[in-house]
Amino acid sequence: MAVNPPVFADIEAAAERIAPFAFKTPLIENADLNRKLGARVLLKLETLQRTGSFKFRGALNRISRIADRSKGVVAFSSGNHAQGVAAAAALFDTPALIVMPKDAPRAKVEGTRAYGAEIVFYDRAKDDREAMALVLCEERGATLVRPFDDRDIVAGQGTVGLEIAHEAALRGVALDAVLAPCSGGGLISGIALAFAALSPATRIVSIEPENFDGMRRSLAAGVRTLAPGGAESIADGLMAPIPGEIPFAVAKRHITDALTACDTELADAVAYAARVLKLIVEPSGAAGLAALISAKYPTNGSAVAVVLTGANCDFSVIAEACARAR
Amino acid sequence: MAVNPPVFADIEAAAERIAPFAFKTPLIENADLNRKLGARVLLKLETLQRTGSFKFRGALNRISRIADRSKGVVAFSSGNHAQGVAAAAALFDTPALIVMPKDAPRAKVEGTRAYGAEIVFYDRAKDDREAMALVLCEERGATLVRPFDDRDIVAGQGTVGLEIAHEAALRGVALDAVLAPCSGGGLISGIALAFAALSPATRIVSIEPENFDGMRRSLAAGVRTLAPGGAESIADGLMAPIPGEIPFAVAKRHITDALTACDTELADAVAYAARVLKLIVEPSGAAGLAALISAKYPTNGSAVAVVLTGANCDFSVIAEACARAR
Repeated sequence: MAVNPPVFADIEAAAERIAPFAFKTPLIENADLNRKLGARVLLKLETLQRTGSFKFRGALNRISRIADRSKGVVAFSSGNHAQGVAAAAALFDTPALIVMPKDAPRAKVEGTRAYGAEIVFYDRAKDDREAMALVLCEERGATLVRPFDDRDIVAGQGTVGLEIAHEAALRGVALDAVLAPCSGGGLISGIALAFAALSPATRIVSIEPENFDGMRRSLAAGVRTLAPGGAESIADGLMAPIPGEIPFAVAKRHITDALTACDTELADAVAYAARVLKLIVEPSGAAGLAALISAKYPTNGSAVAVVLTGANCDFSVIAEACARAR
Repeated sequence: MAVNPPVFADIEAAAERIAPFAFKTPLIENADLNRKLGARVLLKLETLQRTGSFKFRGALNRISRIADRSKGVVAFSSGNHAQGVAAAAALFDTPALIVMPKDAPRAKVEGTRAYGAEIVFYDRAKDDREAMALVLCEERGATLVRPFDDRDIVAGQGTVGLEIAHEAALRGVALDAVLAPCSGGGLISGIALAFAALSPATRIVSIEPENFDGMRRSLAAGVRTLAPGGAESIADGLMAPIPGEIPFAVAKRHITDALTACDTELADAVAYAARVLKLIVEPSGAAGLAALISAKYPTNGSAVAVVLTGANCDFSVIAEACARAR
């Protein structure tokens, strides 16, 4: 099957499609963070997006394009995509069934259920969640809403990039870089596509957890390459072993930097967000911030944007990060 | 001394004066909160203001109007005003000395010191902090920056109301009410003044901790009246026993409702903010939200705005609120 990645016009169309339902999230600055880094940092608060993460954008864009929604949608997800799909489906009165890992964070399971979705659990060690989802789709005549390997999903997530680029331009800020967490690559490739059109000189920086750095390895190799995996990262939403075909087709042309963050760096970023930025950010959502605070991505006095992608962890995760942060 | 309260033009002038330094903080909505209350709630995030509270606005406006700033400023405060004054003074290279209670939250003391201010501690039970501050002013030739009983402070805090009114109008939202916490009344009276000019039909709702409801009692009596006080509230920033003369002069004309919140309601609001809104809000900053969640202020399906005024508590306060919330 030929890969058919979205183009910039698809992001613009997605922005129009989701505008009645998704929030244009704030793009803020924090004086302490700017001073600490000696840079100007614009923080894009997708933590305040409907459902608590950017995933709502892609899900809404995808579901709004299904011709017959009456038989419902099926998705597999460790959590934020699940909530995005459940909430977007509910807006269209479409039944949603979500295949979730048994050990998904309680906040994510409860969140998904609260949006009215049916949940089927799987075992990460034994089951093939994608196969399960496909069987359920066939049984019901439902449509599978993939988490990232889908042009409408990438275009939907790309609206995050569109908003950052537009707002930065409005404020007269020339962005040297945009940083965002990466799992399957839906968000970072969507952002890359938006910036390739609107601000091509801006560096696009992907951050993955150590050992789950499929994007970094794929970009280095020039072909999609599996990450080794291993012990679970505290960034439970960033554990995709390999980028999607569609995201990678965009990424290999437009992503300029791919970095990793270890659990300590992620926890430090979560604690910094709570203590200094006054924001709840889940570990997966703090990967971009971690790359800045740890100086793995040196700002060199420039202006950068970073996406805080989600906030759907149990509160205990924030409390533990604050307790153990250096 | 005749009371000389500010007028609307003073708020407009303050807005221009603080624009280069203060953030226009986000005014967001949360789908879950809207659904829970069956209303449209606009949340004004002064938790994301420079120094972590709205107090920076008034302090900046006041200090920018001091003719000779070389001998410095003195303030007395349990915390957020302290940080506001310290940060604003630092922007003008003005020495700042802050008289703080010995038992002020560690986050507030450290924050104040981090902005470069000198700190003198007092004992809440034994010392007269205002007398101490006046003596220090005289010794140094410094200017006292009062926390609320000052027309430039009220005008500065009023810019919060100006921004809410402008932004709500831009979005086509007719606000039935604006809710904000009240201590000495600087913020709520500033907001009331802005809305009296821009949206006079909007109700202005003040919320104080139980037993520290000087504003509520004063409005009921028609003259400034002491609250009984008693056991400390978890809202350590809202414990002024009586509204200031200048705030009260505005308040008695423009405040329509004055309510109280107990510690349980405040803690529930703090926990709700962290868990659902994904925002760190200190107990004092959550009083308006508490009045909505507890239904003490019934929204009746209308559109309301609520100011989340600050976020400078120790993280343990948030963790405790989340642990004990119903």
